[in-house]
Amino acid sequence: MKSVLLSLFLTLLIYNASAQNADSAMMRKIYDEILSNGQAYSNLEYLCKKVGPRLSGSANYNKAVEWGRTLMEKYGFDKVYLQEVMVPHWERGAKEAAYFTEAGKKTPVSVAALGGSIATPAAGITAQVLEVQNFEELKALGDRVKGKIVFYNRPFNPKYIDAFLAYRDASNQRGQGAVEAAKLGAVGVVVRSMTGIIDDHPHTGGMRYADDVTKIPAVAISTKAADLLSQRLKAKSAQAITFYMKVNSRSLPDAKTYTVIGEIKGIERPDEIITVGGHLDSWDLAEGAHDDGAGIVQSIEVLRAFKAMGYKPKHTLRAVLFANEENGVRGGSKYAELAKTNGEKHLAAVESDAGGFSPRGFSIDAKAGMMQTLKNKWTGLFEPYQSLVFATGSGGVDISPLKTVFPDIVLIGLKPDSQRYFDIHHASSDVFENVNKRELELGAGAMASIIYLIDQHRF
Amino acid sequence: MKSVLLSLFLTLLIYNASAQNADSAMMRKIYDEILSNGQAYSNLEYLCKKVGPRLSGSANYNKAVEWGRTLMEKYGFDKVYLQEVMVPHWERGAKEAAYFTEAGKKTPVSVAALGGSIATPAAGITAQVLEVQNFEELKALGDRVKGKIVFYNRPFNPKYIDAFLAYRDASNQRGQGAVEAAKLGAVGVVVRSMTGIIDDHPHTGGMRYADDVTKIPAVAISTKAADLLSQRLKAKSAQAITFYMKVNSRSLPDAKTYTVIGEIKGIERPDEIITVGGHLDSWDLAEGAHDDGAGIVQSIEVLRAFKAMGYKPKHTLRAVLFANEENGVRGGSKYAELAKTNGEKHLAAVESDAGGFSPRGFSIDAKAGMMQTLKNKWTGLFEPYQSLVFATGSGGVDISPLKTVFPDIVLIGLKPDSQRYFDIHHASSDVFENVNKRELELGAGAMASIIYLIDQHRF
Repeated sequence: MKSVLLSLFLTLLIYNASAQNADSAMMRKIYDEILSNGQAYSNLEYLCKKVGPRLSGSANYNKAVEWGRTLMEKYGFDKVYLQEVMVPHWERGAKEAAYFTEAGKKTPVSVAALGGSIATPAAGITAQVLEVQNFEELKALGDRVKGKIVFYNRPFNPKYIDAFLAYRDASNQRGQGAVEAAKLGAVGVVVRSMTGIIDDHPHTGGMRYADDVTKIPAVAISTKAADLLSQRLKAKSAQAITFYMKVNSRSLPDAKTYTVIGEIKGIERPDEIITVGGHLDSWDLAEGAHDDGAGIVQSIEVLRAFKAMGYKPKHTLRAVLFANEENGVRGGSKYAELAKTNGEKHLAAVESDAGGFSPRGFSIDAKAGMMQTLKNKWTGLFEPYQSLVFATGSGGVDISPLKTVFPDIVLIGLKPDSQRYFDIHHASSDVFENVNKRELELGAGAMASIIYLIDQHRF
Repeated sequence: MKSVLLSLFLTLLIYNASAQNADSAMMRKIYDEILSNGQAYSNLEYLCKKVGPRLSGSANYNKAVEWGRTLMEKYGFDKVYLQEVMVPHWERGAKEAAYFTEAGKKTPVSVAALGGSIATPAAGITAQVLEVQNFEELKALGDRVKGKIVFYNRPFNPKYIDAFLAYRDASNQRGQGAVEAAKLGAVGVVVRSMTGIIDDHPHTGGMRYADDVTKIPAVAISTKAADLLSQRLKAKSAQAITFYMKVNSRSLPDAKTYTVIGEIKGIERPDEIITVGGHLDSWDLAEGAHDDGAGIVQSIEVLRAFKAMGYKPKHTLRAVLFANEENGVRGGSKYAELAKTNGEKHLAAVESDAGGFSPRGFSIDAKAGMMQTLKNKWTGLFEPYQSLVFATGSGGVDISPLKTVFPDIVLIGLKPDSQRYFDIHHASSDVFENVNKRELELGAGAMASIIYLIDQHRF
C-alpha cells in the first residue's frame, strides 16, 4: 500500500502540469464537437432502421458493409477500403415453435434457436424434460438423460455488480450445453435466456458443437417461459410433461464478405496504427442497436470528429467495422493476421462492444506497470466526463487477436454502465429506441479522448 | 497539490485496515440483501400504478401517505408516524389547449400549464408571439412585449456533461419567466420544456409569481412543438403568427397533509438521528417513478434491508417520505422546524431525488476538511459497487433546511447517472416502465452502505 501510494504521489508530481492543461483543453473541444455536432445517433438510426439485423453471411450484412463504406467516404477519410473475410453462414429459417404439454394441455413458449443450432426434423421433436442448473447436476442424472430434452435453467446471479460477470457465470449453459447434454444421449436442449430480467423475449447467441459428439438442436427460452416451465415441472412429476420444439435452421457454406476500414493518415508516424472499432454484424433477431451498432457509429464518430476539428493525428487512425464477431470472430482474426502479413505496426486498439450506455471508463489490457502509469496520468483528465474508471481487463473480442501478433500493444475497451445491457442483448428488444443519444455520444467522447492522448503521448 | 496528496497519503495509512475489512464485508451483505431480496422495485410498481400521480393537496397524495405508512408498519419498523404539514393546493383542471395560427391555418401544439399558473379566461387568450432565449433578449424588446405572448425557447446546452447543470442553466425561463414577461406587459408565457431530447411531451414544473407583478398564465410546450413554432416564426414575419392558449387551473386554500416517517431506534445513541428520504409528492402529469418514487422506495428499502439482516443501528434511523417538494418544500421545512422545536439531534441526512438510475456516488454537503476525510476513508469501499464519486455539492432540497438548524450536519445526496433524468422529468413519460430494477436497487445499496458507515464511525 505504502509503495503504491508513494509512486502515485511521485508520478503525479512529475507529470507535467502544462501538458495536462493542453490535454484538458483539447478533450473539452472533443466532447464539445461530439455533444454539439455529433452524428453517431442519426447514423445509428439509419443502421438500425434502414439496414436492420445483419448476421454474417446475410444479404443485410452486405448492405451494412456498403453503408459503412459510403458513410466513411462521405466523411472524406483519407482512405476507405474493404478487407475480405470468409464467414460462417447460418440461417434461422422460419420462426421456431415450441410448447409443453401437461395433462393434454399445450402451453406455447417463446423460444429462438441458438446461433449455429442444427434444425429438428421437419415434424419437430417431442420428449420429456429434465431441468438442471449446471453440468454437475446434469452428469449426476447419468442414464436418465437419454432421449430427453435438457432444460438448463440457471438464472443470472443478482449478486454480481457488473452484469458482464453474471453473464459469464451463466453462459456455459448456452455455449457448451448441447455438447454436454448430447454426451449423455439427450435429443435437444432448451436454455434459459442469458438475461437478468423476466420478460418474454428469447435471447439467442452463439453455441458450439464438438466434432466427436452428436449434434442436437438447441433453443433459448424466454425467462418468463422458463420460470413457468420450471414451476410446472416442480408442480407435476416431470414425467407428466413433454416438450415440443421445432427448429428450421440451416448452415450454408462459408460466405465471402468484408470488414470495413476507414483511415486518417498520421503526419508523424504514419506507419504506426491506432485502431478504433466495433463489430458490424448483429444477431438476426435484433436491430443490433447496442450490440454493436453503438460501437460502430462511435468508432466512425471518433474519426469524423477529429476531421471536423481539423485535428491532424501523429499516428494513423483506423476506424474498423469488424465482420463476424457474433459467430466466429473471423473479422478480428483476419485483421490481426493481415497486420502481421503486411508488416504493420500497431500501437494500440480501442473497442466498443459493451453497449451504447453511459460510459464509466475503460477496461485495459496492458502490462501491469503501464496500466498503473496510464491510470495515474489520465484518470484525472476523465473525471469531468464521469468516465474515470481505469480497470484491468479485456479490451474486446475483435481486437484481442492483435495481442498475439503485437505483444506490446495496449488494448482498451470502452466500459459503459452494464446494468441494462443484458436486458436487450441478442434479443428483438435490442432496438434503436433503447439507445440514449447523450449516453452514446459520451461514449464516443471518451473513446476519442483516449485515442487523442495515446496519439499525443504514446504510453 | 503536494499538501493534499500528503494528507491523502497519511490519512490512508492511519485508517485502520481491519475496520475497513469488516466494513467491506458488511457492505457486501447489504448489497446481497438488496440485490437478492429487494422490494424497492415492486413497491415502486405499486406506488406508480395503484396510487399514481400525487400532487400536494390532491386525494391521491393522501392515498400515497396511507400507502407509505401501511408499508412501513408492515415491515415492522419501531415507530411509524405522520407529521402534519400545510401544503399549497393547485389543480390543473381540464387539459390545456393551444395552437398557433398562420395564414388562417391552426397547428395544435402540446402544452401543459406550469405548476402554480393561473388560468386564462374561459375563452383562452390569443396574441402574437415573441420568441426569446433569455431575459436580456426580452428586456431589449421593451415596449414591443406589451400585449404579446412571450415564448422562451433556450434549449438545454448539450456541452454540460452533468444534465443537472444543463437544467440549472435553462430553468430560470420556467421559474421566473412569467414575472419578467409580465413586467413588460406580456399577457402569457410559453416555455420550452426543460429537457434535452426532442419529443412531444410537455414537461411541467414549478414557477413563481411576484406580489407586485401582474400574474399571467404560463405553459410548458413540448420541445418538438417548440422547434416547429420557432421554425415558423423564423420563416414568417412574427406578426403573421398568433398563438392561442387555454389554461383551466385553479389555486385552492392550503391543504392539511402529512410527511410520513418510519424509525428504527438506535441502541447506543437513540437520541441522535440519521435521516434517509425522498419526496412522496409528484407532479400531476406523471407517475413520479424516477421523481421521486425511486427515492421513496429506496429510503424505505434501506430500513427494510437493515431489519431483514438483523442489523441494530447505533443511532436512530429515519426513513422520511417528505410532503410537497415539487411546489413548496413545506415538508422539508416543517421537518427541520420540528426537529428544532423538539430539541432533536441530527447527525446526517441522505436524500435520493435525482432518479432511480445507476448510482455514480454521492453529492456531499459537509465542511471542507470533513469532505476530504470522508472521500479518503470511504471511496475505496464503494469502488466494487461502481459508486465511487464523492463530489462536493448539495445533499438535496428536502434535507437542506436541516442545515440551518444543525450547522454541523452532513447532508448527502445519492448521485445517479444523470443522462436520462430530464428525458422524463415532470412529464407523462416518468413512468414505472422507465425504471430499471437493478439500477434502482444499486442506488438503495449505496444509500444503505453510506448510512451504515456513518452509523458505525460517525465522521
